[in-house]
Amino acid sequence: MSQATFEQLGEFLRSRDCFEILTHAYPDGDTLGSGFALALALNQIGKRARVITTGVPKNFEFLSRLVPAQDFEAQTVVSVDVADEKLLGDNIEAYEGRIDLCVDHHAINRVNAKQKHVDPHAASNCEILYRLFRFMDIEITADIADCLYTGVSTDTGCFKYGNTTPETLRIAADLIEAGAKAPAINKAMFDTKTRKKLRLEQEIYATIEYSADGRCAVIAAPLELQRRLGVGDGELEGLASIPRSIEGVVIGITLREKTEGEFKISVRSDKNFVNAAEFCRGFGGGGHAEAAGCTIIGSLDEVKSRLRAAVDEVL
Amino acid sequence: MSQATFEQLGEFLRSRDCFEILTHAYPDGDTLGSGFALALALNQIGKRARVITTGVPKNFEFLSRLVPAQDFEAQTVVSVDVADEKLLGDNIEAYEGRIDLCVDHHAINRVNAKQKHVDPHAASNCEILYRLFRFMDIEITADIADCLYTGVSTDTGCFKYGNTTPETLRIAADLIEAGAKAPAINKAMFDTKTRKKLRLEQEIYATIEYSADGRCAVIAAPLELQRRLGVGDGELEGLASIPRSIEGVVIGITLREKTEGEFKISVRSDKNFVNAAEFCRGFGGGGHAEAAGCTIIGSLDEVKSRLRAAVDEVL
Repeated sequence: MSQATFEQLGEFLRSRDCFEILTHAYPDGDTLGSGFALALALNQIGKRARVITTGVPKNFEFLSRLVPAQDFEAQTVVSVDVADEKLLGDNIEAYEGRIDLCVDHHAINRVNAKQKHVDPHAASNCEILYRLFRFMDIEITADIADCLYTGVSTDTGCFKYGNTTPETLRIAADLIEAGAKAPAINKAMFDTKTRKKLRLEQEIYATIEYSADGRCAVIAAPLELQRRLGVGDGELEGLASIPRSIEGVVIGITLREKTEGEFKISVRSDKNFVNAAEFCRGFGGGGHAEAAGCTIIGSLDEVKSRLRAAVDEVL
Repeated sequence: MSQATFEQLGEFLRSRDCFEILTHAYPDGDTLGSGFALALALNQIGKRARVITTGVPKNFEFLSRLVPAQDFEAQTVVSVDVADEKLLGDNIEAYEGRIDLCVDHHAINRVNAKQKHVDPHAASNCEILYRLFRFMDIEITADIADCLYTGVSTDTGCFKYGNTTPETLRIAADLIEAGAKAPAINKAMFDTKTRKKLRLEQEIYATIEYSADGRCAVIAAPLELQRRLGVGDGELEGLASIPRSIEGVVIGITLREKTEGEFKISVRSDKNFVNAAEFCRGFGGGGHAEAAGCTIIGSLDEVKSRLRAAVDEVL
């Protein structure tokens, strides 16, 4: 399918009404920021719109509060930051095959939509929407700026990661000028931890094991620990970055027990020393050169020793 | 003293030679980035220059390696990011009263120099140098960009804090275009922890005490713990942000025992609930509305209960 131009996107949005905007499950700042920004932009040009989610996590409620609830019968369906209809979670059945327009920034996009605009060079989907709104002469209000800034900032780790381009930073500058409350958003996104998360980190630190002369570090979250602390996806998500962040470590491995004896393995590496994707392929997994994953069946000790042996082979 | 203009700074730098560039003690990314960037810029216009430090921490050696060593008798002394000559540490005696030019971004600057350019609106001193170099038609090479980016990024917590302006972000964009290796620098500055630091955080997490219905959190690093883990300033520095980062906490207090029974107190607060400076003034200290400090003498338990009582009064 050919890529819809900004001109075509603008015509499409102006010619339709009663929008439902789909976001992906396990929602992050980019899909929610995109959804609420688009709803506000559509309201501005006289259209009705609502954002469809699998639930807005508490730390993102400041975004959903910006958008007034509107009652209408849906006529148009747009997905934002959704790479595959399977990622719609509980909304798959209701919307599969019904998407009119898909706007996304993932390199591989499998959404089946009548029109698509996919730009993998954009660090966040919110970057694409910022440029689209400017193209359409939509005013970047302070509320729209808050939504877009949230996506631009969270998808780049607050401009820390390699996907941050000069354009990303210039868009963030424009959004702050437009009124985005950047310090408050960044505090909520990057400098706030739940007590549970803190207790989890404390216990996880105690599980760190080094091998290969300190160049490999392994942490583990067995089911017993998850149950005892009562932690779920929300808390466990960020763990994978911990072992690789330790000085001298070039391969960091995180074991998360999904069901009794079934471990989801996350590998983060310095690609100058270890290719994480190749490492994981040895266990039937895959991914990128510096971030990859696989699943291994066994006891915690067995899984650890298989991983350590594989590390000793490559390092 | 009147502020030297960029024109005057340019004339001064071009008319002199054999520069010694002073940085502040306990050096950070901004003073070192400024120092090494200025040395490289001076080399580019045919001048000899060296950076005077109190020692370059290991994680900043990638900057010092960019600047070739030069042997010469010093004729000109410039300080960068130094708010007060007292902050020169071991270099106070050798350089006090001998500074020809002071370039700084601190709101209160007490350096006694023949010429000064102080811009408190700049989030980092490196921002000022970037603008000066552009004004002087100095080419922003990839090496200069690495130095300047380090200062711009570290002094804003990677663009997370409220001092980040639209201009900060646009300068960072320019520096990445000029070749700054932003992802590698950010990984080293923000995503690398020593094993000692990790062990310290693990033990510190175990000391967290909540009061005022979870709106106050207190952590403590007594001498015993510091000695047992063998940690010093480098590891202890970042602790103060931990308690305030806990969800629901509006005043976070960090106790660091300096000598037996003498505690340095760091307070971080949400100014909508507690003014940290006023809180600390009650103990003879001071600071800003959201970050302040004081010193309290007593046993760990005494100090904690005095602080808790003060918190109960304001919350």
